[in-house]
Amino acid sequence: MSSPPSAAAAAPWKRLLLSALEANANLKHARFFQLATVGSNGRPANRTVVFRGFSEGCDKIQINTDYRSNKIEDLKNCPYGEICWYFTDSWEQFRLHGRIDIIDGSTVQRREKSWFASSLSSRFQYLAPHPGLPRILEEPKGGVDLDPSKGPVSSFCLLEFDPEQVDYLNLRSNERVMFTSEQIGDGGKHWMLQKVNP
Amino acid sequence: MSSPPSAAAAAPWKRLLLSALEANANLKHARFFQLATVGSNGRPANRTVVFRGFSEGCDKIQINTDYRSNKIEDLKNCPYGEICWYFTDSWEQFRLHGRIDIIDGSTVQRREKSWFASSLSSRFQYLAPHPGLPRILEEPKGGVDLDPSKGPVSSFCLLEFDPEQVDYLNLRSNERVMFTSEQIGDGGKHWMLQKVNP
Repeated sequence: MSSPPSAAAAAPWKRLLLSALEANANLKHARFFQLATVGSNGRPANRTVVFRGFSEGCDKIQINTDYRSNKIEDLKNCPYGEICWYFTDSWEQFRLHGRIDIIDGSTVQRREKSWFASSLSSRFQYLAPHPGLPRILEEPKGGVDLDPSKGPVSSFCLLEFDPEQVDYLNLRSNERVMFTSEQIGDGGKHWMLQKVNP
Repeated sequence: MSSPPSAAAAAPWKRLLLSALEANANLKHARFFQLATVGSNGRPANRTVVFRGFSEGCDKIQINTDYRSNKIEDLKNCPYGEICWYFTDSWEQFRLHGRIDIIDGSTVQRREKSWFASSLSSRFQYLAPHPGLPRILEEPKGGVDLDPSKGPVSSFCLLEFDPEQVDYLNLRSNERVMFTSEQIGDGGKHWMLQKVNP
């Protein structure tokens, strides 16, 4: 049997991240991380988002978001983000730097899959009033209806975060490892790692 | 008795933040938050830092850092940051946007106070090798000595974060409040608040 091509092999930081997820699996918030972007005014923005798993067969990280949220405008201006993911039980931090693709209505399949993978209460959020706009306290007449078998609504958006660099810090062992990548011919990545001072 | 001038009154978001700190006081990580900055390449950076309290008599948030860390270069390029502070027990998120002052060796008093307020193990970090540089595994000859009565070493740096806008989200009550400020004549701030859609 031949070994799989290097592009298909999992990135070396992924094993560490999967271990951290497992070690902290008892905590609901272990799947939350902070995503930083840059606004059109050149200033940083930062918010908590939910890890929705990896895209099939690759190391891209999936995030669901409301298409009406500010982060969409930020990403149209600068498509790079930095995730800071701190695991409170195992004292590990992952800083992932990478490019983010907006998978909106025009990219049907992956978006649909992610929609149906979300809970009904998560899906309901996309029918709610425009996030960040002044709150009008009256409830909409007749309530909002959501058919569980219906596909994504227009405000539902999938983000795919493609890590280019991962800075791993273990506060228990006081070890820090920097993973950097370079593109290889077939669209894959070659990863290098180096221990650095914490 | 006359009432205090509005500039001296605590900002309206501060009461919420102090309550959250109290409600989550049993968790060591409740004093950790994620600070986003923008690098000279225009891309975001994001890392976990420790809340070191408020500066005396105002609403500025104190953060200690190593002067040799990348965030110093980031802040010289763009002095704005965004803190994302998620409280895992009370399900509250504070996104604080503001300007950051670097209080280095030239601003003696506040920096000294913050140095002595840090634990000895925190102070030791500033004597460690340059963060982020390749690790040289040999320990320095004779170890590193730290006199507890001695003032800050040159790599110790205090950051003062001055919030301009605070976006508060309570995931239990599903309420979101936006606090925005405008400068008033005497260097103080006038704060306005508005309930917005979560």
